[in-house]
Amino acid sequence: MLTQPVLSPEGLADALRAIGAERYHILHPFHRLLHDGQLGRGQVQAWALNRYYYQSSIPVKDATLLARLPSADLRREWRRRLVDHDGDAPGTGGVARWLKLAEGVGLDRDYVLSGAGILPATRFAVDAYVAFVRDRSILEAVASSLTELFSPKIIAERVSGMLAHYDWITQDTLAYFTPRLTQAPKDSDFALAYVQEHARTPDAQQAVLGALRFKCDVLWAQLDALHHAYVSPSCPPPGAFVPQTR
Amino acid sequence: MLTQPVLSPEGLADALRAIGAERYHILHPFHRLLHDGQLGRGQVQAWALNRYYYQSSIPVKDATLLARLPSADLRREWRRRLVDHDGDAPGTGGVARWLKLAEGVGLDRDYVLSGAGILPATRFAVDAYVAFVRDRSILEAVASSLTELFSPKIIAERVSGMLAHYDWITQDTLAYFTPRLTQAPKDSDFALAYVQEHARTPDAQQAVLGALRFKCDVLWAQLDALHHAYVSPSCPPPGAFVPQTR
Repeated sequence: MLTQPVLSPEGLADALRAIGAERYHILHPFHRLLHDGQLGRGQVQAWALNRYYYQSSIPVKDATLLARLPSADLRREWRRRLVDHDGDAPGTGGVARWLKLAEGVGLDRDYVLSGAGILPATRFAVDAYVAFVRDRSILEAVASSLTELFSPKIIAERVSGMLAHYDWITQDTLAYFTPRLTQAPKDSDFALAYVQEHARTPDAQQAVLGALRFKCDVLWAQLDALHHAYVSPSCPPPGAFVPQTR
Repeated sequence: MLTQPVLSPEGLADALRAIGAERYHILHPFHRLLHDGQLGRGQVQAWALNRYYYQSSIPVKDATLLARLPSADLRREWRRRLVDHDGDAPGTGGVARWLKLAEGVGLDRDYVLSGAGILPATRFAVDAYVAFVRDRSILEAVASSLTELFSPKIIAERVSGMLAHYDWITQDTLAYFTPRLTQAPKDSDFALAYVQEHARTPDAQQAVLGALRFKCDVLWAQLDALHHAYVSPSCPPPGAFVPQTR
């Protein structure tokens, strides 16, 4: 192993952004097909269905970390994420809005909630994320959220591309994304400042960078699995969702 | 949910074999390419490299279950699996033989041991298997091993196909598989008798069938990921092994 230098806080932020520039799933072919309007309705449904499992696991992931945080200050900060995703009343919050997106692209609500047709690879990747946040250091758990540094850009591409190219998708269907444009930067500002403050040694900084790489892998693997099952060669594994429409 | 009937021991065995007939990875296109000699050396290397992570996790999985088993009889039975995989001395046992297979197809031993280039999807799927055996009932954990009911057939196809089609693969390289032809049936005879004896209610039997479906998903997802990364469209995710030879 080469000896790693200590990075300044700005150097650490640059190194994190460099990982995003190489590994964030905005670079994945499936994302480009999605926002360029190259997918059929069944393929968009497969995306929305599988992504629902990810979205609905995010508050599980955040609650898992919340349970490990040592101070009221940290817990209050992280609790905000739970409010964003679970809402303050039934039918509110990010997970409920994603369910509306899934219904808006033509999926049955109960089918989506059941998780029955999702790709096993989706479940394995998402569960790996929850396990990471449960089992690794708090520093790594916080750092694994830092893909949100890059999410405003992918959301902007997704929303504008999907509205422009799919006439059966409305602004209302994509309502999930609007609050995320303000929530994600608030979350990632905090998480970035946290890792800059707490990762002061080469080992800790490499752990932070490794956590972001891991999280990029989690997102990328989900699109790989969708691409394989529904684009090319387009063979869903036994038991997975089979689109009725193309 | 429909009410499920109680199956006889033979009925349960039939239902397990029916799952294998639909979902075992002998049906996966990647397996067919592999045993028909349709893969290049780099693709076979990618398979051997990723599969090493699975193989080396099997004794971890077995030790995880061993730690939960309540009687000396059960633990002795399950301990045999550890002996099979970890051997009795350095360089012996199934994991060591898989490492020789990986070297035999041209991979660097230390690279394989490091796990550096494996697909994230491989890690997620394999880790999900270990977590399943840790977190589910002992009945489900035992049942998840039952893909070994089907392994003699896939091993026979793999060995004969690979020897016939790849002149750079020798009998010696494939030495991993020979003892598995006798070990796997011994293991699966025990596991099948165990679930037949302990799953006597519809719920327990459905849990057993679900565990086997889950395990088939674990194996299938690994081949899906290999197919996507190295066959079609053949784009390994960032950081994964890139074959030098085709």
